[in-house]
Formats: sequence, C-alpha cells, structure tokens
Amino acid sequence: MRPSGRAPDEMRTIAMEPGFTVHAEGSCLVSFGDTRVLCTASIEERVPPFLRGKGEGWVTAEYGMLPRATHTRGSREAAKGKQSGRTQEIQRLIGRSLRAVVDLKALGERQITLDCDVIQADGGTRTASISGAWVALRIAVDKLLASGALSVDPIQAKVAAVSCGIYEGNPVLDLDYIEDSNAHADANFVLLSNGNIAEAQATAEGATYDEEALLRLLRLARIGCTQIFAAQDKATGR
Amino acid sequence: MRPSGRAPDEMRTIAMEPGFTVHAEGSCLVSFGDTRVLCTASIEERVPPFLRGKGEGWVTAEYGMLPRATHTRGSREAAKGKQSGRTQEIQRLIGRSLRAVVDLKALGERQITLDCDVIQADGGTRTASISGAWVALRIAVDKLLASGALSVDPIQAKVAAVSCGIYEGNPVLDLDYIEDSNAHADANFVLLSNGNIAEAQATAEGATYDEEALLRLLRLARIGCTQIFAAQDKATGR
Amino acid sequence: MRPSGRAPDEMRTIAMEPGFTVHAEGSCLVSFGDTRVLCTASIEERVPPFLRGKGEGWVTAEYGMLPRATHTRGSREAAKGKQSGRTQEIQRLIGRSLRAVVDLKALGERQITLDCDVIQADGGTRTASISGAWVALRIAVDKLLASGALSVDPIQAKVAAVSCGIYEGNPVLDLDYIEDSNAHADANFVLLSNGNIAEAQATAEGATYDEEALLRLLRLARIGCTQIFAAQDKATGR
Amino acid sequence: MRPSGRAPDEMRTIAMEPGFTVHAEGSCLVSFGDTRVLCTASIEERVPPFLRGKGEGWVTAEYGMLPRATHTRGSREAAKGKQSGRTQEIQRLIGRSLRAVVDLKALGERQITLDCDVIQADGGTRTASISGAWVALRIAVDKLLASGALSVDPIQAKVAAVSCGIYEGNPVLDLDYIEDSNAHADANFVLLSNGNIAEAQATAEGATYDEEALLRLLRLARIGCTQIFAAQDKATGR
Amino acid sequence: MRPSGRAPDEMRTIAMEPGFTVHAEGSCLVSFGDTRVLCTASIEERVPPFLRGKGEGWVTAEYGMLPRATHTRGSREAAKGKQSGRTQEIQRLIGRSLRAVVDLKALGERQITLDCDVIQADGGTRTASISGAWVALRIAVDKLLASGALSVDPIQAKVAAVSCGIYEGNPVLDLDYIEDSNAHADANFVLLSNGNIAEAQATAEGATYDEEALLRLLRLARIGCTQIFAAQDKATGR
Amino acid sequence: MRPSGRAPDEMRTIAMEPGFTVHAEGSCLVSFGDTRVLCTASIEERVPPFLRGKGEGWVTAEYGMLPRATHTRGSREAAKGKQSGRTQEIQRLIGRSLRAVVDLKALGERQITLDCDVIQADGGTRTASISGAWVALRIAVDKLLASGALSVDPIQAKVAAVSCGIYEGNPVLDLDYIEDSNAHADANFVLLSNGNIAEAQATAEGATYDEEALLRLLRLARIGCTQIFAAQDKATGR
Repeated sequence: MRPSGRAPDEMRTIAMEPGFTVHAEGSCLVSFGDTRVLCTASIEERVPPFLRGKGEGWVTAEYGMLPRATHTRGSREAAKGKQSGRTQEIQRLIGRSLRAVVDLKALGERQITLDCDVIQADGGTRTASISGAWVALRIAVDKLLASGALSVDPIQAKVAAVSCGIYEGNPVLDLDYIEDSNAHADANFVLLSNGNIAEAQATAEGATYDEEALLRLLRLARIGCTQIFAAQDKATGR
Repeated sequence: MRPSGRAPDEMRTIAMEPGFTVHAEGSCLVSFGDTRVLCTASIEERVPPFLRGKGEGWVTAEYGMLPRATHTRGSREAAKGKQSGRTQEIQRLIGRSLRAVVDLKALGERQITLDCDVIQADGGTRTASISGAWVALRIAVDKLLASGALSVDPIQAKVAAVSCGIYEGNPVLDLDYIEDSNAHADANFVLLSNGNIAEAQATAEGATYDEEALLRLLRLARIGCTQIFAAQDKATGR
Repeated sequence: MRPSGRAPDEMRTIAMEPGFTVHAEGSCLVSFGDTRVLCTASIEERVPPFLRGKGEGWVTAEYGMLPRATHTRGSREAAKGKQSGRTQEIQRLIGRSLRAVVDLKALGERQITLDCDVIQADGGTRTASISGAWVALRIAVDKLLASGALSVDPIQAKVAAVSCGIYEGNPVLDLDYIEDSNAHADANFVLLSNGNIAEAQATAEGATYDEEALLRLLRLARIGCTQIFAAQDKATGR
Repeated sequence: MRPSGRAPDEMRTIAMEPGFTVHAEGSCLVSFGDTRVLCTASIEERVPPFLRGKGEGWVTAEYGMLPRATHTRGSREAAKGKQSGRTQEIQRLIGRSLRAVVDLKALGERQITLDCDVIQADGGTRTASISGAWVALRIAVDKLLASGALSVDPIQAKVAAVSCGIYEGNPVLDLDYIEDSNAHADANFVLLSNGNIAEAQATAEGATYDEEALLRLLRLARIGCTQIFAAQDKATGR
Repeated sequence: MRPSGRAPDEMRTIAMEPGFTVHAEGSCLVSFGDTRVLCTASIEERVPPFLRGKGEGWVTAEYGMLPRATHTRGSREAAKGKQSGRTQEIQRLIGRSLRAVVDLKALGERQITLDCDVIQADGGTRTASISGAWVALRIAVDKLLASGALSVDPIQAKVAAVSCGIYEGNPVLDLDYIEDSNAHADANFVLLSNGNIAEAQATAEGATYDEEALLRLLRLARIGCTQIFAAQDKATGR
Repeated sequence: MRPSGRAPDEMRTIAMEPGFTVHAEGSCLVSFGDTRVLCTASIEERVPPFLRGKGEGWVTAEYGMLPRATHTRGSREAAKGKQSGRTQEIQRLIGRSLRAVVDLKALGERQITLDCDVIQADGGTRTASISGAWVALRIAVDKLLASGALSVDPIQAKVAAVSCGIYEGNPVLDLDYIEDSNAHADANFVLLSNGNIAEAQATAEGATYDEEALLRLLRLARIGCTQIFAAQDKATGR
C-alpha cells in the first residue's frame, strides 16, 4: 500500500505549462504531483572553448533548488559559495540526457543552456527536470527553425525520465518524497520515444537488489515515460 | 511619454498570489507587471548566535534571481561560488525593511527567513520583493498566532516599497526595465502603512538631482505604496 | 546632549593630509575626528572589458578596514576569503559618488581606482572615504593635466559626504561610533559643490522617521559638506 | 577487435598489493592493467554530526587523481580550490558501494574513511577504487576484530566493481582509456559476492542502447567481478 | 655602488612611532626608509582550539599590503578571495619570530595577534614588520603588567629582523626595492638582543652563493639589528 | 641517542625508483626511510603569461600530501577548497630550488611542472621532494635532448636537499618525524653538486641557536647531500 494510495504502476498527475516565463527562448513549468520545476532554454550564439571552430553546438544544463522548495528550509547554495555534489551530479545527468537526442552538428555553433530550478520538491526533481527541459528545448529549437536560423531539426527524438524504486518490498513507479526517503532501492531511467535507453541508474539504499528487480523497475519506467511523452506532445502542440 | 504609455504616477498591475507553494509557513507570488518574485517565509525555532539567550527573535532575508529571469541569461551565483555585491545589498535592504515593522521581543526566540527569488525580472525586483515578503511574513505569523505559539501580534504595521526615478527629465513611478536602464536618477522608498519612512535611497545615475526632485519622488512613492497596501490587505484577507 | 559634547550641527575636526604616500598618483589621509582613512588614486591606462574601445574612462573604488581599526579586532577579509556585504555596499557607493562628478568621456580610455583603507574607525568611515577620495582623485587628475595627457579637466564639481542621524530623538550631524551604535535613524548624504545631490540614503534603525525628519537631516548634511568642501580646497591648494 | 587485443570478456591483469603504506589501518595498491589506485582505510572514533549518539557508524570515501596520473597533466584540484563534479560523483559512488556491504550498527560509533588516490590512470579508475577500497576496509576491520574493539564482523559480503561498454558495436569488459574515450555506451556495475547488485549505471555516449545491450553488459560485469573477488580473497588471505 | 648611495653596511633611516592608532592595545608605525608598516597588537582572552585548557597563550601574526603600497597597484587580496602564498609565508614567519622571544606559559591563556599592514613598500616589508611588531607587542604586554593581569614579564628578549643580499656581487645591508629586484641572493635574518638567531633564510636568485657569502650576510645583519634594537628601546622608553 | 639508533651524521636509507609512472615525461619515487614521494615532471609547450614571447622557459612545482600519508588522517586540501600556507611555502621552495640549476633561456619557451605528491610521510618530505624532483626533471630533459627538441643541456648541476636539526641538544642529520616534532631548531639546506648553496633556512622551534650551531648544521647537510647526489647519479644512469 503506497502512502498516496496509488497503484504500483501509477504516475502522479503530470502537468506541463509551456511559456511560463517570457524572456527565455523556451520555458516550461513541469509538475509531477507536488514536484514543480521551472525549466528554461536559453540560446547563445557561442560555444564552450573546447568546441570553438568545430562547427558543432552544445547543450548543457544547470540545476538548482529554491531554499524553501523542501519541507524544511535548506541553505542557499549561492550563499554557501558552492554547489553540492548532489547538484552537480544532477545537472550533469540532465545535460547528458538532452544531448542524447540532439544532433550537435545539426545544431550549429551555438549553445543551449537548460536551467532547471525546483520551485517545490516532493521527490523526483531530477526526472521532472529532464522531462520538462525537453519541452523548453523543443520550443527554443522550433523558434530557430521558424526564424530560418536552422533548416534541419537537430532534435532526433523525445526524451523523458522517471524514478522507480523498491518500497516495502514492492517495485513502484514515480516515488514521492515519503517513498523516496524509505525506499530500499532507487532507480532513475532516461528513455527515448524510440524505445532506447539513454541512462539507467539503480542504486541500493539499505538493501541490494537482483537482476529480476532491475528489469521490473525498467518495465515500470516504460509505463511512466509513455505518459510523459504524451504530455510533452500536448505541451508542444504536436 | 513613458515607453509603456503609463501616466507618470501610474503603477503597473499589482498581483499577489498567497500560498503559491505548499511547504513554507508563508508564501506569496508577487507581480509588478512582468516582474514576478516568489517570496516564502520560513520559521525556525532558533536564532543567530548573537541573539542566543536574549529572548528576542530575528527576521532576515535572502534574495536570488533565476539565471534566465532576465532578457539575456545571467550566470548562476551558486555556480560562480559567490553572491554579487548587488545581491547582498538587496537582501540586506529586504531584511532591514521587514524588521522595521516587527517587534522582535514579541516574536520570541525564533527566526523568520524571507526568501525572495525572482522568477522573471522587468525592473523593481527589490521593491516587489519587500512588498511580497510582507505578505509571506503576515501569513506565517498568523499561523503562529492561530496555533497559540504567539499570543501577541509582533507585526506593527504593513510595509511596502516602490521605485521611482527621473526618466527623460520627468519624475515617474514604478520604473520598468527600459525606464530603469535609462533613468537619470533612481530611487527606492520603503514606506509604512502609518505614513512613516523605513528607508529612502535616491541615487544619481548620469545626472545629479536637487531637493525638489527628491520630494517629488517621495510623493510618487506614497501614491504607489497606497495601492500596494491595498493589494496586501486583499492577499491576506484583511 | 551628545556624548562628545558637540552641538547638533557641529562636525568633528576635519583634517586632510594630501600626498600621505609616495607611489600613488594621488593620495590623502583624511580624518573626521578619530576616523582616519587613507585614500589613494591609481591611474591605469586600460578600462574594464565592458568599456573597451568606447573612448570612455572609468572611475571605481575599493574599500577595506584594517583588522584593528576598530575597538575590538575584526577578522581580516583576505583571510576569510571574501568581502562582506557591508564592504561591497560601501565600495559601490564610493565609486558611484565619484563618478557623479567626472565626465568619463573627457577622462579618455583610462581607469582611476580609488582605494579607501580605514586605518582607524570611529563612525562615518564611508563618508570620510568619499570626501578624501575626491582629494586623491583631484591630485591624480591634476597630474594628467600637468603632463598634457589630458587637456580638458574631466572633474565637474567637488563631491563630499557626511552622515547624520537621529540620536536620542534629535537630528545630529556627523555621528561618531557611540552615536552611530545608538541612533534610531542613520543617513548618509553625498552632495556636490553646486548644491545638487548625488546620493541620499536614510535608514530606520529601531524607529522609523517622517518626511520632516528626512529634510532636517538633509539640512544638517549641507552644513557639514560646506566645511568639507573648504577642507578639500585647502588640501588641493585651490 | 580491441586495441589491446583482449577478448570481449577479458579483464586486464588485476593486482592487489595490501599494506602498501604503513600508517593507515588498511591499505591496498590496486591495479587493473595500467590503472593504479592507492586505497587507504582510516578509522576514527567519531561519527558525522547527523549520526551522533545513534550508536551507528559511518563509511565514507574521498577520491582524487594526481595531476600527472593522466596522459596529459590535469590541474590540481587543491590549487583550483574545488573538486570537480566528476570527482564528487565518483566519491559518492565509492562510499555508497562500500556502505552496501557494511552493517553500520555492528560497526559502532566510528567512521571509516576510504581514500582512493589515482597514481596512474588508464580507464576504470572508479571501479578499481571500489574494488581496492574493499580490501583496505577488510584489513582495517580485521584489526578492530583482532584488538577486540569489535566482536562481530560488520562486513556482510565482498563488493567489487567493473566497467563495461559498447565499443565499435560490441559489448566489452573492463574498458581501458582508448576504449573508454570511444565507447558508445559506458556502464559501471557494483556487484556483491552473493550475486546481488549494489549499483548499475549505464550511460549512452553518442548512441543510445536497448534493453538487450543492458543485460549483456551486466553479464560481462559478472564475469569480471568473479575474478576481482578472487583477487580480493588472495589479498586478504581468505 | 648602491643606487641610494649608501655604504654596503648602511641601514636606511629607521623610525618607529609608537601609539599610531588608539584602539589597539599596542601599535607602532615603523619605517625603514620609504617602507612603512603599521603594526598593531590585539589582546584577546581566548586561545586557539589546540591550546584550550593547557594554561598557555599564543602569539600569532597576520600580514597585508594595501593595494597601492607598491609602485604599481596590486590587486586586493580580500577582493581576489585568497591570500597569496607570499602573504602566508610572511605572516607565518612574523608569528614564529615573535614567539621565539615570548614565554607562552607566562603569557597565560590569552592570544596576542600582531597585524602588520604595509602602508608603503620599498623593500624589506617583512623585516620591518617583525621589528615593528615587537614594539607593538612590548606596549601591549606592558599594559597587561601595569593592570596586574600579568605579574611576570613573558617577553624574554628583543627581536629584530633585517634583509641583506648580494647586489652586483657585493654583500649589502637592508635592500631597498631596486636592489631587491636585482639581487643575486636575498637573505632575511631574525636576531635576538642576546645574540642568538631565531631564523636565517638565504635564497639564491639567479646565482647561488657559497658558505663565505652566507657568513658575510649574517655579519651585516648583526650590524643592522643593533641599530633596530636601539630604535626599539627608544620607542618603548627603555 | 636518536630514536632510530642512527649516528648524528647518518642518513636514512635513500631509494630512488625512476620511471615509477608511465605517462609523465619524467618520474621518480623517492624514499628517505619511510618518507616516500612520487615526483613527476610534465613538459608543456607554453609558458606563463609573464614570460610569453621572451624566448625563455619556466620550471615550477606543486606539492601535495595524500590524506593518509601521515600517522593520523589529515583533511584533503581539494575538499577544503584551499592549499594551506605550509603547502604553498613548500611548493615555492621546490620550484625555486630546481630553477637554481636550470638555464631558463636554454630551456626555450616551454614549462616543466614538477608535481611532488607525498605517498607516505615520516619527516623531510620537502627535502625528499626536491631531491626526487631533480631526477624527474633530468629524465624529462634527457628526452628533449634525445628527440632533438633541445640541443644544449639546460641543467647546470645536480641539486639536492636535506633537513638537519638540533635534537636533544645535538645537531643531527635527516630528521624523521619523531625527531622533527621535538627538535629545538629545524633547518633545510638545498645544495648544488658544485658545492654552492641554493637555499639555507634555519628556524628556531622552542630554543634559538647561535652561529656555531648554524655552521654545524650546514656541515651535516653537506654529508647528506653527497649521498643523495650519488643516488641521483645511479637513478639517472650517469
């Protein structure tokens, strides 16, 4: 029995509000239940030093959490003077996941930065970030296509992510904060709309798991991502 | 003629959405036109070291801006590893302004932290922050009163803030970004609902000003704050 | 009754010793009573990146306080690894105040940095810094004029600053440390020799104030600045 | 065809030299081919603040790489003043992996820190670190058992890790640097001697992968870990 | 021939102005020619953690240089966010040198911090700092003796320091900036009034030196320190 | 009587293992008894900004200590976010000592960085580092000569270093950790194979010393360095 009363393979309500802010080339406020993340895509006509002059673009991400996004107030990373290991790990994952569906040569020598800022947290902030960032990216790239800056679409597929875990011995989909804090194993899957996997991470927390469990978690993730892909289509009008 | 077509003493549309997030003891999404700031109030049952054992409370503030709140993306302070001088100056102003209306002895040995995070910026982020933070503070303190943790209300007045400036030679109220970037003088007034002044700051930018101009700017601020006080009343149901 | 026995509109003894150090293009040791600040002006034939190639110059300031300038030893900012919010706020104010009287185009593509280092503190360090920095700047610019590097004087007026406050209910001029620690409102005014205002900042500390009080503080500041302008003339031989 | 001429399921030579340094309670110089990591275990009779007084211990890890462990010299993290996101991600993984086989209650209120410093790098430094850290931990805990400080062994299993990847379309075991730089997918598996999984991470680099590939990589990892477990037994005399 | 026209064994003019600032328990503005350093001694009734409860005191030092103490402006260490290796090396030397003449047990559980801030630099700032810091320390300790806080004098001797070097092949005493920049070897000696040596450092710069040269430099240092001891006596009224 | 039973002028066993790592242009694992330091030389075809375009090269050094090189674990400097004053002082000394024997013009516009990382510490890590770094440098320069990148050898002599000190009243050579912790004076000498001195540093720790003692320490250092020069010859096959 899940604390929320959900079935093991039941996602929380997914909402995606495109264009939540006006300045960014693309933006989306994504909600997985009470988890809400503002994702923006910013286009800059320059690339990092290691890519200069190579005719390729870059997609990168930064992640942050407002101090009172959580149940109790956390300290502000800007005030502490450094990003935690967790923050860096998450933003590296987001960037990698989005690059998995972009043809960087087709993007041309420009950089798109995806900022994912958690307004409210209730578990699954990194997977909501990846899913919402794709919408912001799609909107930004559509503007490049509409303006003629790009003639070929560099986005090759949709990408979505969801967490799963083993809670009280049962594999469940889309953990909320209470489940996440008590799960014995915690997994994040980043899946493509063509069925492929961009990233699989399954971590034991308190109890290790076997191969069978790994496969059941992956199957739950496929169920969740199918729903996220549908929400992405709706948000981007496709 | 103002770029927005507003009259010299005309505020932008003020909106205050209380309870925008669920975890904080008080929260408010405040908008002055396209400027939007999420203000949260977090109560902690401890005080900073310099107040320990003195039977007094503390009210403090932190300020931040999402990287793409602005027209072009700014760098993330957490990634740069330090808060800018501007950020620190603003958060000191916010904290000071709110403390001006709180009886810290009546608050008891607890701290309330006001986090003001700019979701979207179009001029006047510090004054919107102060005005919205008061709503978050009011809601949080009401909870302390309702629960019996406090029996006497430590908030002594409403506090609001607004910017004014001299744009193309004319004193105008509530500068937006275009006006702010081109104003010859830039002022911020923090006013109390009892008519008193908590803070007056008027800075020459390109052209110095005389005493007459200072007084005209203050009069504009009184007009603006009257409207903000009304919005605060509405948001807090008073 | 003021602790020092001064009349409400009485400044402390002002002293300005030009040429206190030999290497800087301009220098001045300024004293407002026991507050002593060493101000130096350094000319560099380069401008910050945002001004390169625009044919304009820049004037900026840095502020510091020796660890034992104060009654009890403070920690050294270089050892702590960052400048406090207060330090940054003050050095931004000093730079802005000096720029208010300099024609940056007439200065040409060079930067003048004003370093204000507090040797001994007894209240009013920021206003003494501004007043002394003008002398250091004047001396440095005179050298540029004398050498032919400049043919037109870019300095358009004198600038001076003084603090005022409401101490035991009475507006008083030029607060020393004891008064500053106990004032109910604390103001700093930066005035030009032509009568205009470059900056007005009046902050409630413990008790808010009304418009009448703001005006009385400004009038006290005019009295103080008149004396500072005279000391500046004497120090620069004008 | 692999650059090294190895078969797809062939590990590099594994070497484990226990007691490489004299001061640490446990130490091991582990080599996977040209990758060499010095692992030390340090016992401290204190725990981090979040565990104080709970009667539980802690196992944590730190990771570093000597500047010239690599083909070209990298900058020293101590000189740069911060650890990279990659370093933090790796040391979090090492700590988590070792905790997966330790009963923290049985360890008692003490902390064991595993320092993994890469002397020479040729791919697979994080997996060699985990495998060698287990040996250092085993030796340190054996000393606690021998001295009577512990009476029950808190180590519940062996843990080992190995990388796998898809190189030129083929799943291969234990990537060296050349393979790692060109692999289309890169996975790290942390396995227990009882067959369970502590961590599975499979990341697309250039090409995403399917479920079948994920399973083949896991099977290769099992082959590699079997050999590492044998080397661990030999190094610890079991 | 020295640029200043001095004889090889001739010091620059030494000046020591005790009581230069009012707040510190001891202070001295020391000049070796154009090199001027403000030294203050601050007494605190606490010791660093490693000495707590041991009944011993501590003497430590911090060193800084105002940005425009030098011929061209250097960057401010507080703004850069860290102290240079040179600064740290110098402040460690100053602290060690003063501790060499203080009986820390006789000092009791208190700390004296010597701040040495270079107002103007022309070579030999570290040796002037040590020499002037002794005067500040002597004055501060005399206050402890006068107040009865101490009954036995913990200062066992005078300590002074001077630089020597090999300039154009000749050993010379008390290098100024021009000599220092061109010397082939550069030495600093810290000597006690009882004839003993607290520190000898002789460094090759461009050309190594032999044992005979080392001894000649030491003899020059004895000549210089004799004059510094006399100035210290005069400044402290002994 | 020394704790190790050594005679006053007896070195610990010196071992130098050239080529300890494969990537660096030169490497050496040096041991003075239980003190073991890995020294690598990295050649880069660029020079620091202050040397660009001058046709000269540069030799510099970085020093580090693994956290558990010592009897009790020290904190990792990369994790703390800064190098200690001690670390910076040592790496400045190593760089200076090696530059004393290199003709930087003959080296050409390239930089050689010597990384000295202490694997295990038992006193004398800085002197072992200098001695081992020379071997790594020699090997790296020999490669430049062999490849024809250099036609004239820029290394003018061997350089070695050793510590001496006054332990229980007696001057002794090559202090180990126990002696170093209890010595009343601690000296480090950097000597050239031609008999000259590159650096002499003798520091009082607890008791100051006289000129006679300084000379006896230097004589002990000559004895030790003779043995180190022989080990360097052997390690480099000369």
